[in-house]
Amino acid sequence: MTLRNDRLLKALLGEQVDVTPVWMMRQAGRYLPEYRNTRKQAGDFLSLCKSPQLACEVTMQPLRRYPFDAAILFSDILTIPDAMGQGLYFSEGEGPKFRNVIRTAADVEQLPEVNIADELSYVTDAVSVIRKELNGSVPLIGFSGSPWTLATYMIEGGGSKDFRIAKQFMYDNPEAMHLLLDKLASAVTDYLNAQILAGAQAVQIFDTWGGILSSRAYQNFSLVYMNKIITNLKKENEGRQVPVILFTKNGGQWLESIADSGCQAVGLDWTTEIGDARSRIGDRVALQGNMDPSILYASPAVIREEVATILQSFGQGNGHVFNLGHGITPEVNPDNVAHFVEAVHELSQPYHN
Amino acid sequence: MTLRNDRLLKALLGEQVDVTPVWMMRQAGRYLPEYRNTRKQAGDFLSLCKSPQLACEVTMQPLRRYPFDAAILFSDILTIPDAMGQGLYFSEGEGPKFRNVIRTAADVEQLPEVNIADELSYVTDAVSVIRKELNGSVPLIGFSGSPWTLATYMIEGGGSKDFRIAKQFMYDNPEAMHLLLDKLASAVTDYLNAQILAGAQAVQIFDTWGGILSSRAYQNFSLVYMNKIITNLKKENEGRQVPVILFTKNGGQWLESIADSGCQAVGLDWTTEIGDARSRIGDRVALQGNMDPSILYASPAVIREEVATILQSFGQGNGHVFNLGHGITPEVNPDNVAHFVEAVHELSQPYHN
Repeated sequence: MTLRNDRLLKALLGEQVDVTPVWMMRQAGRYLPEYRNTRKQAGDFLSLCKSPQLACEVTMQPLRRYPFDAAILFSDILTIPDAMGQGLYFSEGEGPKFRNVIRTAADVEQLPEVNIADELSYVTDAVSVIRKELNGSVPLIGFSGSPWTLATYMIEGGGSKDFRIAKQFMYDNPEAMHLLLDKLASAVTDYLNAQILAGAQAVQIFDTWGGILSSRAYQNFSLVYMNKIITNLKKENEGRQVPVILFTKNGGQWLESIADSGCQAVGLDWTTEIGDARSRIGDRVALQGNMDPSILYASPAVIREEVATILQSFGQGNGHVFNLGHGITPEVNPDNVAHFVEAVHELSQPYHN
Repeated sequence: MTLRNDRLLKALLGEQVDVTPVWMMRQAGRYLPEYRNTRKQAGDFLSLCKSPQLACEVTMQPLRRYPFDAAILFSDILTIPDAMGQGLYFSEGEGPKFRNVIRTAADVEQLPEVNIADELSYVTDAVSVIRKELNGSVPLIGFSGSPWTLATYMIEGGGSKDFRIAKQFMYDNPEAMHLLLDKLASAVTDYLNAQILAGAQAVQIFDTWGGILSSRAYQNFSLVYMNKIITNLKKENEGRQVPVILFTKNGGQWLESIADSGCQAVGLDWTTEIGDARSRIGDRVALQGNMDPSILYASPAVIREEVATILQSFGQGNGHVFNLGHGITPEVNPDNVAHFVEAVHELSQPYHN
């Protein structure tokens, strides 16, 4: 099956494209009425993730509306801790929670290895079903949370404002924390490799909470484990390179070291000027991003102007994948997404001659 | 009245000191049982702020326990919008709220000018009372929220996760937003000048929410107004220069332009490596910070080690004021603060020869 639109894969590798490819983090999400319907049908969020057919359906929904240049697997970042027996659940309006938490070195030692083929087959099955459904139209991106990000949820028992318990564990029990991160890095490696084998054509590591660390702690407790994962990922599948995108929210100060992680592309949130990022790290990796998702609440004219500004900031040449700087939020008007995607494709042409 | 300990003022101006001065953001706060008692006595948080005697009492409390090198005025960052008639109140567990919100250009136009001497005399009175009570022991720092930070609360009606309403207002009504920020910049200037005249010996501008903006929006909607304020502040009082500290949380990517704002010192949160910051901006301004407040939950040995690492990262010479990278949190054990302050004074001696 040939891939009819391979702009994303080319751009991630810095190769020549006709226009800048675009997708959105959380593009299959609550801003779409059809997503809300499917989710209602599924009953709850986890059931939606765990049904390959429904996960495929919501993955496809944004592609029926907009000419995105990629699909991204619909799933949750916390599937691995769930498969380790931590008991993931979602309480309405409060986000993810775990029934069991990690609070001691013994808790870490007792954590089982995850057998991806057994425990997370619903994810690899979803990848296969989606690839069939995509039928070569656009590539499919797989993903995982980073070890540090997963660890914060496992220790805190859910989201957190200040990550006090996770940080205290890290500072007071660094050895136990390293063991936990090492176990998670192994699991993430196996998980992403399984997604690649099932058909994911690029993968993104979401380091959602790396940016709450000090610079030194980020290097030692987050980045080093992402490096390790990237080193052990399958480099190629179906005769094509599988690019890796590394996204650390609030990681703008550490771009140089993120770019040295072995990834092919660095995801930028909206606080970094993309032109500055490019001049800091050169063209040795591609850049993905970085419009403030809040701009999708503004008028179509403002959205178009912001797209133009970001394209101009990146400048002439390849190695840019357009995206938001974080996931799209539920209250956005779906019409504005159409204006956004159209603006990227239209206005980026002159930059690719 | 001579100032017996002027390390803070000297360090903020890059002058020679014997040890690195230290204070903590939110040092008068809920981690102290005596603070919780006084607050109970006051009834609620705003009544505590509005009583010069009680504000003085809680300002002094940490100084009775620890050899801090500065006092900071106890107050709230939202006193200015309150004085503009926005109706500030605190709902238990939910943080600050406003009864009236700004949602249109007309709302902005109708905002009254604040007469500091009338509306905010409780703040300048508190400054006078505290100065008398300090009796020359350590200098007193005054402060204000930044225009952008105040504007976010006024538009959102309180705190926010994604600042959607404030950002939509900024993107869709940039002229009204600039008018609002201009009005706030005038009020902040008058407010800080009144604090200086009443006896504040240094002032800090808290740009708590500047870091949620894109790089361009930060320059245009936050930094430019802080520049304007700094330009119009009283430079000297009681025969001494009054240094200005500018603190933008999550502003680590913009340090160069923050350092060019006219301030004497840049406050760093914990995500920036202080040695990197110093090599980026040189010694043209002092640096304040930047230990992760979460480290105060760790053991005394870990706290001491982190203090040592930060001192070493800054390196030899002057222009460093030790602080946390953000306010101390309520659950910290007060004993750990003693270890922290002691470590700074002890371990910093070799860096000042």
